[in-house]
Amino acid sequence: MPESPLAPLFEPPYWVVVFSSQRTEGDHGYGAMAEEMERLVAQQPGYLGMESVRAADGAGITSAYFRAEADARAWKQVARHLEAQRLGREQWYRGYRVRVAKIEREYGWDRE
Amino acid sequence: MPESPLAPLFEPPYWVVVFSSQRTEGDHGYGAMAEEMERLVAQQPGYLGMESVRAADGAGITSAYFRAEADARAWKQVARHLEAQRLGREQWYRGYRVRVAKIEREYGWDRE
Repeated sequence: MPESPLAPLFEPPYWVVVFSSQRTEGDHGYGAMAEEMERLVAQQPGYLGMESVRAADGAGITSAYFRAEADARAWKQVARHLEAQRLGREQWYRGYRVRVAKIEREYGWDRE
Repeated sequence: MPESPLAPLFEPPYWVVVFSSQRTEGDHGYGAMAEEMERLVAQQPGYLGMESVRAADGAGITSAYFRAEADARAWKQVARHLEAQRLGREQWYRGYRVRVAKIEREYGWDRE
């Protein structure tokens, strides 16, 4: 896990997959799979970084950053990720949204 | 507040402002301003919806959706929002990132 939950800036244009979700109750293997997916996505071609937040009420947003649109598309089709998507619908999520977007500009600020 | 934390799908192309942040300790007026900003953004031209999550450790991601790029730009310049941005740097955040992106495709799933 990165020291800061904030990813660095990556210089547009690049792509983001925004995954927003609402979890069901209980773990049911979710935590282990989430960690596995975090390791796996980091090995994908064109992967730049991610930011991921889940609130106590089970709402979550994960932003995964890729250099190219094709990189984002390829990640969706990775076999173990497809399996995670299937299990997500079967057990882990009440609902989710996936939005794929091209980042056109960015800025950031850090204290100190 | 919406019943579900997930925004509906809005039909691309549209724009997202992804605001990721790490809070400082304590409230210092943050909660009230966050609610005010949530009401204010909902009145902006071209505003479509938002999703917002904050974890117990202070990491947060908010996605605000707008029909056009100009709508997202205009929101950044709303006077009371500029004031909130100033106070954010002064007190509320350890750091933040803002990424403005054009949504090219989307899909979603809901249980039942």
